[in-house]
Amino acid sequence: MKRGVASLARAAGLIFLGHWAVAFAQAPPPKALTTAEVLAASKADDWRALDPADTLFLDLAAGRVVIELSRVHAPQHVAAIKTLARARYWDGLAINRLQDNFVAQWGDPDNKKPLPKLGPMPPEFSRPIAPDLPFSALPDADGWAKQVGFTQGMAAARSSSEQWLVHCYGALGVGRDNEPDSGLGNELYVVIGQSPRQLDGNVAVVGKVWRGMELLASLPRGTAGGLGLYEKVEQRVPIRSLRLASDVPASERTNLEVLREDREIFARFVESRRNRRDGWYVRPAGHIDVCNVAVPVREVPATRP
Amino acid sequence: MKRGVASLARAAGLIFLGHWAVAFAQAPPPKALTTAEVLAASKADDWRALDPADTLFLDLAAGRVVIELSRVHAPQHVAAIKTLARARYWDGLAINRLQDNFVAQWGDPDNKKPLPKLGPMPPEFSRPIAPDLPFSALPDADGWAKQVGFTQGMAAARSSSEQWLVHCYGALGVGRDNEPDSGLGNELYVVIGQSPRQLDGNVAVVGKVWRGMELLASLPRGTAGGLGLYEKVEQRVPIRSLRLASDVPASERTNLEVLREDREIFARFVESRRNRRDGWYVRPAGHIDVCNVAVPVREVPATRP
Repeated sequence: MKRGVASLARAAGLIFLGHWAVAFAQAPPPKALTTAEVLAASKADDWRALDPADTLFLDLAAGRVVIELSRVHAPQHVAAIKTLARARYWDGLAINRLQDNFVAQWGDPDNKKPLPKLGPMPPEFSRPIAPDLPFSALPDADGWAKQVGFTQGMAAARSSSEQWLVHCYGALGVGRDNEPDSGLGNELYVVIGQSPRQLDGNVAVVGKVWRGMELLASLPRGTAGGLGLYEKVEQRVPIRSLRLASDVPASERTNLEVLREDREIFARFVESRRNRRDGWYVRPAGHIDVCNVAVPVREVPATRP
Repeated sequence: MKRGVASLARAAGLIFLGHWAVAFAQAPPPKALTTAEVLAASKADDWRALDPADTLFLDLAAGRVVIELSRVHAPQHVAAIKTLARARYWDGLAINRLQDNFVAQWGDPDNKKPLPKLGPMPPEFSRPIAPDLPFSALPDADGWAKQVGFTQGMAAARSSSEQWLVHCYGALGVGRDNEPDSGLGNELYVVIGQSPRQLDGNVAVVGKVWRGMELLASLPRGTAGGLGLYEKVEQRVPIRSLRLASDVPASERTNLEVLREDREIFARFVESRRNRRDGWYVRPAGHIDVCNVAVPVREVPATRP
């Protein structure tokens, strides 16, 4: 039976280990491992549980989208988003924009909900590098930034002095008007297509979708204004609720763990994506883009109280 | 009213031209133009009409997907695909795979349709560079290839000796099994997410979707096998017909023109995307990825017979 391109996602196949399959007296040379082999060897503390105090549950009729916020990159925007979630600001509002290969966006385009005082808000498009600011560099070159890597499982970039979260698939950003300080956090978007890296440094990226991207990316596209806005109010996709995980009863939470980028295993994982080792590939790529690294995530049972 | 991230897609705003807005005796220095300004100045012959003999109409209940094939990159696969389209091979089959942030794929997973003799088929993953092989280089560096650019409006890459079409959003590829020569052209996929460039050189890219990507990218994702296959046959998305445009009556055709990459205007267009000039941006990116260049396409009235 033809599996077609399907085969390329099979990660569990055996590989030919050649002469490395003998014992070594010294440290063995690195073996080329598939992603499944790398992850099968992970230890419990290679994974980090999302902190419920920094996690949002966006509940739609179709299911739940789990989003993590980054306090270190956008503290004031994140604080505003938490304030709005606690006020149930978005409940009953809707996703009103779906622009193909670009963003899904929600907010209050009709200004029908009273907005708590949130501003003035600094742009928070990037922040200064500091000794305690986590960043695990990717060795691969990037066209937009001096260096790229990961922080908190999120794709990030650095200049010589600044660090920022970058616009990869699933990045959560704060919509704004033309004035750089006009994004308050009440209008949010998620990248659903090819990484629009031209937005980097122009807008605050404040988090990442860890689960449920398929619920956003499969929504019908809007056709209004060349912006993917839905033509009619009834096309909008209602938000049942958008809550902080810590405000949701433990029994109703989705508990996720993500692979830590500050563990040795992470480099092995990235290498398994950079140069694929299953039987389908004839030519390893030798390079990976920061937005092509889908950081592993897994659901776990509720943690004990 | 807050327009949020919406504003970034407005390309028609006026820009401050400063002292360039005076007349010059010599050739004027390049002005920074928005995309809308660049395209507004295009001439008729800056556009190329798709050749109906190389164009496919994939008709779904939701609408039409228009695909162009590249004879120069994959002549034998393209010939096979045309043979299959003429035999109406795909009509009544279905899209059976939707893997989020990866591909939409169609074919005959149940092997219920007799397949004409198509093989043996060479891999056609790349082809030698030749003097008559069109390629307009992008000046921007690429992580995967020595050089990237465009040919026939499609994103392409070059090594010192070979050229190939790359996996950007909307690229059409030929599914294959583990054997490199096992892709016959009856199983096709379209990229619907972040460019999976690791596939480059591993599979034949044979064309590009010019219109209707939103119809593929908004389909429900499949959940089977970790591959996005639909669990149930009834979830599959029926193909009403997949025909060569030249086999469709002229009155029923969708006639598209695309901006030519071998015209001077193309570099100006790319620059308007590399460094955005509308009022929303505070920081031009200074770089563009070949997969971030959405080559302009427009619908035109039917050409005279």
